[in-house]
Amino acid sequence: MPVTDRVKQIMSWYGSESPGVKANLVRLLNHGTLAGTGKLVILPVDQGFEHGALRSFEPNPAAYDPDYHVQLAIESGCNAYAAPLGFIEAVADKFAGQIPLILKVNNSDTLAKVDPCSAITSSVRDAQRLGCTAIGYTIYPGSPLRNQQYENLRAMIEQARDVGMPSIVWAYPRGAGMSKEGETAVDVAAYAAQISAQLGAHIIKIKPPTAHIEQAEAKKVIEKYNVPTKTLADRVRHCVKSAFNGKRIVIFSGGESRDTASLLEDVKQLAEGGAFGSIMGRNAFQRPHAEGLKLLQDVIQIFKASA
Amino acid sequence: MPVTDRVKQIMSWYGSESPGVKANLVRLLNHGTLAGTGKLVILPVDQGFEHGALRSFEPNPAAYDPDYHVQLAIESGCNAYAAPLGFIEAVADKFAGQIPLILKVNNSDTLAKVDPCSAITSSVRDAQRLGCTAIGYTIYPGSPLRNQQYENLRAMIEQARDVGMPSIVWAYPRGAGMSKEGETAVDVAAYAAQISAQLGAHIIKIKPPTAHIEQAEAKKVIEKYNVPTKTLADRVRHCVKSAFNGKRIVIFSGGESRDTASLLEDVKQLAEGGAFGSIMGRNAFQRPHAEGLKLLQDVIQIFKASA
Amino acid sequence: MPVTDRVKQIMSWYGSESPGVKANLVRLLNHGTLAGTGKLVILPVDQGFEHGALRSFEPNPAAYDPDYHVQLAIESGCNAYAAPLGFIEAVADKFAGQIPLILKVNNSDTLAKVDPCSAITSSVRDAQRLGCTAIGYTIYPGSPLRNQQYENLRAMIEQARDVGMPSIVWAYPRGAGMSKEGETAVDVAAYAAQISAQLGAHIIKIKPPTAHIEQAEAKKVIEKYNVPTKTLADRVRHCVKSAFNGKRIVIFSGGESRDTASLLEDVKQLAEGGAFGSIMGRNAFQRPHAEGLKLLQDVIQIFKASA
Amino acid sequence: MPVTDRVKQIMSWYGSESPGVKANLVRLLNHGTLAGTGKLVILPVDQGFEHGALRSFEPNPAAYDPDYHVQLAIESGCNAYAAPLGFIEAVADKFAGQIPLILKVNNSDTLAKVDPCSAITSSVRDAQRLGCTAIGYTIYPGSPLRNQQYENLRAMIEQARDVGMPSIVWAYPRGAGMSKEGETAVDVAAYAAQISAQLGAHIIKIKPPTAHIEQAEAKKVIEKYNVPTKTLADRVRHCVKSAFNGKRIVIFSGGESRDTASLLEDVKQLAEGGAFGSIMGRNAFQRPHAEGLKLLQDVIQIFKASA
Amino acid sequence: MPVTDRVKQIMSWYGSESPGVKANLVRLLNHGTLAGTGKLVILPVDQGFEHGALRSFEPNPAAYDPDYHVQLAIESGCNAYAAPLGFIEAVADKFAGQIPLILKVNNSDTLAKVDPCSAITSSVRDAQRLGCTAIGYTIYPGSPLRNQQYENLRAMIEQARDVGMPSIVWAYPRGAGMSKEGETAVDVAAYAAQISAQLGAHIIKIKPPTAHIEQAEAKKVIEKYNVPTKTLADRVRHCVKSAFNGKRIVIFSGGESRDTASLLEDVKQLAEGGAFGSIMGRNAFQRPHAEGLKLLQDVIQIFKASA
Repeated sequence: MPVTDRVKQIMSWYGSESPGVKANLVRLLNHGTLAGTGKLVILPVDQGFEHGALRSFEPNPAAYDPDYHVQLAIESGCNAYAAPLGFIEAVADKFAGQIPLILKVNNSDTLAKVDPCSAITSSVRDAQRLGCTAIGYTIYPGSPLRNQQYENLRAMIEQARDVGMPSIVWAYPRGAGMSKEGETAVDVAAYAAQISAQLGAHIIKIKPPTAHIEQAEAKKVIEKYNVPTKTLADRVRHCVKSAFNGKRIVIFSGGESRDTASLLEDVKQLAEGGAFGSIMGRNAFQRPHAEGLKLLQDVIQIFKASA
Repeated sequence: MPVTDRVKQIMSWYGSESPGVKANLVRLLNHGTLAGTGKLVILPVDQGFEHGALRSFEPNPAAYDPDYHVQLAIESGCNAYAAPLGFIEAVADKFAGQIPLILKVNNSDTLAKVDPCSAITSSVRDAQRLGCTAIGYTIYPGSPLRNQQYENLRAMIEQARDVGMPSIVWAYPRGAGMSKEGETAVDVAAYAAQISAQLGAHIIKIKPPTAHIEQAEAKKVIEKYNVPTKTLADRVRHCVKSAFNGKRIVIFSGGESRDTASLLEDVKQLAEGGAFGSIMGRNAFQRPHAEGLKLLQDVIQIFKASA
Repeated sequence: MPVTDRVKQIMSWYGSESPGVKANLVRLLNHGTLAGTGKLVILPVDQGFEHGALRSFEPNPAAYDPDYHVQLAIESGCNAYAAPLGFIEAVADKFAGQIPLILKVNNSDTLAKVDPCSAITSSVRDAQRLGCTAIGYTIYPGSPLRNQQYENLRAMIEQARDVGMPSIVWAYPRGAGMSKEGETAVDVAAYAAQISAQLGAHIIKIKPPTAHIEQAEAKKVIEKYNVPTKTLADRVRHCVKSAFNGKRIVIFSGGESRDTASLLEDVKQLAEGGAFGSIMGRNAFQRPHAEGLKLLQDVIQIFKASA
Repeated sequence: MPVTDRVKQIMSWYGSESPGVKANLVRLLNHGTLAGTGKLVILPVDQGFEHGALRSFEPNPAAYDPDYHVQLAIESGCNAYAAPLGFIEAVADKFAGQIPLILKVNNSDTLAKVDPCSAITSSVRDAQRLGCTAIGYTIYPGSPLRNQQYENLRAMIEQARDVGMPSIVWAYPRGAGMSKEGETAVDVAAYAAQISAQLGAHIIKIKPPTAHIEQAEAKKVIEKYNVPTKTLADRVRHCVKSAFNGKRIVIFSGGESRDTASLLEDVKQLAEGGAFGSIMGRNAFQRPHAEGLKLLQDVIQIFKASA
Repeated sequence: MPVTDRVKQIMSWYGSESPGVKANLVRLLNHGTLAGTGKLVILPVDQGFEHGALRSFEPNPAAYDPDYHVQLAIESGCNAYAAPLGFIEAVADKFAGQIPLILKVNNSDTLAKVDPCSAITSSVRDAQRLGCTAIGYTIYPGSPLRNQQYENLRAMIEQARDVGMPSIVWAYPRGAGMSKEGETAVDVAAYAAQISAQLGAHIIKIKPPTAHIEQAEAKKVIEKYNVPTKTLADRVRHCVKSAFNGKRIVIFSGGESRDTASLLEDVKQLAEGGAFGSIMGRNAFQRPHAEGLKLLQDVIQIFKASA
């Protein structure tokens, strides 16, 4: 499909990038129902690794099968499907060329008690041989293993660029000096978006920010300049602004809410706040098929309406 | 021998793999008494390294000799023989081409008190020069050294793939936050199978899962959805399902049971639960030769009957 | 422009360097209002990474935009603009060739509680592909991670030299054995300048030294030889002397002072003490545009007058 | 000299090895008084590094000189001379071709208090340029640094094999969970021999095992199966059996005993137990020259008689 | 100049070395007033890095300038000048070919509280591009970071050899288990010389040993064999003997003594004890120029007289 003005505008912010990386960014933006709008909805399925198959797939047992997810992503009109190595290997050949694939190159499980730092479980070379469009990498800003994670990400982005692949950063702040609610605090989420952008992320994924403010210095600034943080839309707006004044693509997860109404209300707030899209996993694949499909389509329509 | 429909079906789940890796997977499935059935019985002998020669071989002193094991594997009709570098070097030339060899590339001993993490004791290059068909690698999910193990495995699988060799993962959960009985809990064993599959293992080896449930969140899900975990067959079924809905080869060790009757009863439960086979070491080579041989043949027949 | 006698003199101290590195050092010295004077004023913007976008840019929201800073540096007549990877990527193509760019290759954030050591967030290769003139690297002398930082810097300088790029070292002493005020003590700041010079830095950036003396042995020497440390100019003179008797380029940050008068007074002292220039970030970009622009121009004029 | 039947038999156990490694193993077995018998006596001199020159050489000051040792090894008819880099460099050119040299590639000193792990102090490349026939490497099974040691050994053996050089492993169990007398316990010594063989050692050097049994599980097995451990010969027999049923060359150090009679009595027990030879350092070079020479010759004769 | 018999004799101890390394060793021995005598006096200036410029150079402010030192070394007739990267870079081009340069490739500062281990601050490649004749490397035997230091030294010596450059080891015992006075104890200093020689050092630099004996086992041996340790000459003799019976070049620092008479008395003792020379920094460059020059010349004459 031709490149729309909005996509051209977005791509203009990535002017220093190579044509190869730009081409794959355009591919992500030009696929699915939201093609050409500059918005993205991605189906990510790394919960099997992160929480176990039982907790992830038993609510909708069809989801034990790797085929299920990529089919759901295709059917619902998502822009892309993201998963760890095993799940991508299980479907890459069978569904080749049907939807952009994102290889989640690092992952964590909940069996071990370790400082926040995902293991690197696949490579850019894997992403290439499997026909992927981009790689995904999780960082935990606030972790005592921060340097190791940022440095591995740096190397990963460089390798991906060398083969024309953009990098998507999942930024989940956590660590010794941070309170539990601080992990999704508006100041912390916005800071994580800024760090990701400075690290060279092409697309940044954060959690919907809460009204909590974690850092004393941030609180002072928010109060002094009356930065709006009351509604989710306000907070999303601040996070997007923190990623180079909106010149980097920032997308948000669906959050903890479970009933469909409040979930869609949250998505509307994301869209209103200027989010570039959503990444929605458990809320989609843990519902019965028809319900999960409808939910993804509704989310996509909300972003389409806001484009 | 020609490739049977069942083997073709199994191979269809590995569609994204290279022809070289597929060829060696077929070689494993097409050797021995179980050739073509899609089932595998493997004789593994790493106990000399893991527990010392005395404890491993004194019960049947013929087993001190490296030749003993590979001969037993050939004679009994196993699909393959697996061992650490030294044992493979001792027989690779003499028995070349008589049975697929699996090089166990990492190993632990019980002399040192260290966090669970095997030392890498041989390489894919060793596997090649010794004419092996696959490599074997142990991970300890739950260990504080998880990342190091997963990352080394990732590199090892990539190197093995480059030379057309599949990778077999021994997944033994253990570590600081886990109870002793949790190491074989059904939720933990199934989780370990899922992790191994996501890491790109071609064949996954776990211990027979017990009815114990280790993780509180898992317990809730099992109760909510009435996941059957009462019989060993039930639990095996859950573990196999947890490995991509049965689309990855999962095999089980013989467990702790020592008298032949209960051991064979367990194997029947494994077969009933959909296990792809067994890996049986101590129970075979610590018995007098005729007895060990018969045991292996009986186990093989159980899987043959279930195929 | 032709090379002035002063620039020739400065370059004579770098006699052992390669023509490529020398050429880029001359480029830095020959750009902007201070071109040819041997003085430098650089606009650095890494505060988004180091403290978050909110604290850094909310005081002057135009500064959320990456374009803002490089434009300010160009407009004000600075010698160069320095920033982390993301900010440089955002402007390198659009403003190509308009001002020398310095890629800050390592960075820290304030979310994690870790020993002082910045993560390496970009590479010499990045600097090359983005058309940069030099790289910048932060060391924290006094940190328990000193060796790792010095060794990474060594490798970085070598790589940069290989492609004809000079290295600028930000030297910020801190660490377990050092008091908070010791971090800017005159003896410590001068020591940091000496270390940086010995490590092969082409340009050294330190904080304006205070009259505090941290080390007992240094105190004895200062008293015995009546080393003047009373005025800021005195202390700057000592720091410049400590960098190979003034034969390495040493520049200073603007310090903590916030009101314009005292800030400019400090800059005058820097100039009087023989500083080669200033590096001024927050004090410039956190002011309204016209005010920030004027401040930078005034600073530049002070150095011009002292040249 | 021609290869004897016994040497041919020994070499048959190393069938998977490359011709280059085999050739150098034969060279070791075919040198000196014991040539062709399948027995080895090696003079090792790493005590200068391990305990200092004073403690090692002052009892016989001629031994301060590096020439002394290699001359003693030649004169006494040893199979080989083993030493760290410096000592080998001091004599390799002067005595080139006169006796097989073994480069001890890792070493420890007693100045530092560290976990048991020798530093790698030379390389296979050094061994090559100095004309050595084999390398020697010390492991400390039981050490918390076990994995690092085994992994470095793995790499070293691979490099040595690539240039046709066999590897000799000095296996000295020690570490946090082990009692002092456990370090030479018969079960531990035998376990160390098994580990070394599994790691791919071509020749294994252990200490003469004592009657102490360290591990509770080992004690049970020894009692249950009446494994003889009463005489040194019994224990040596068990250790040799533990190294692939005697299919790996296992040699023993002279132990702590100092008076000649008891020392030679121990050597007789070693020979009776099936040891492939001895490695004798301090007991030889700390005696006056004539006495040390005679001792080595007597030890050699004991093994010759047992061959 | 032609090679004297004494230099030929010294070189005969390095028979296994490559012609390139030998050529540069001869260059060091054949330069300056002591050319051909087999003795060496070297001016080392790493105190700026190790203690700061203030403490090092304020006593004689001309010494702030990098040119000062190399000129002093040339003028006084030293064999070589040794310094860290920055100082060598500052003079290598200007004084090219006038005196052998030794690049100190690792360095420490006193700002950080860390286990004894210098950072690697330059490379063999740096030494080559700067026209150096040798590299210098500091080890701290006794440090918990011993292995890292020895292993890095091993790699450094190998790289230097590859380009025909000898390696000089500064051996300064210190660390957790050692008393302050133990660092210069005669047994410890001699042990450090032995370790350095075994590690492959071509020239060894230790501190003048005191009469203190640190290790209980060493004390027993010294007493048993009446090893003379009363005079400095006695102790120097023991240290030189400990370095391969005098077959490695061992040189000594000037020690702590400050008044010229006692300093020269010490040097006479060094010469009498068979030291191959001195390395004298602070005592030379912290004196006024004429005085420092005379001191160096006097030291050189003492060694000349003893040659």
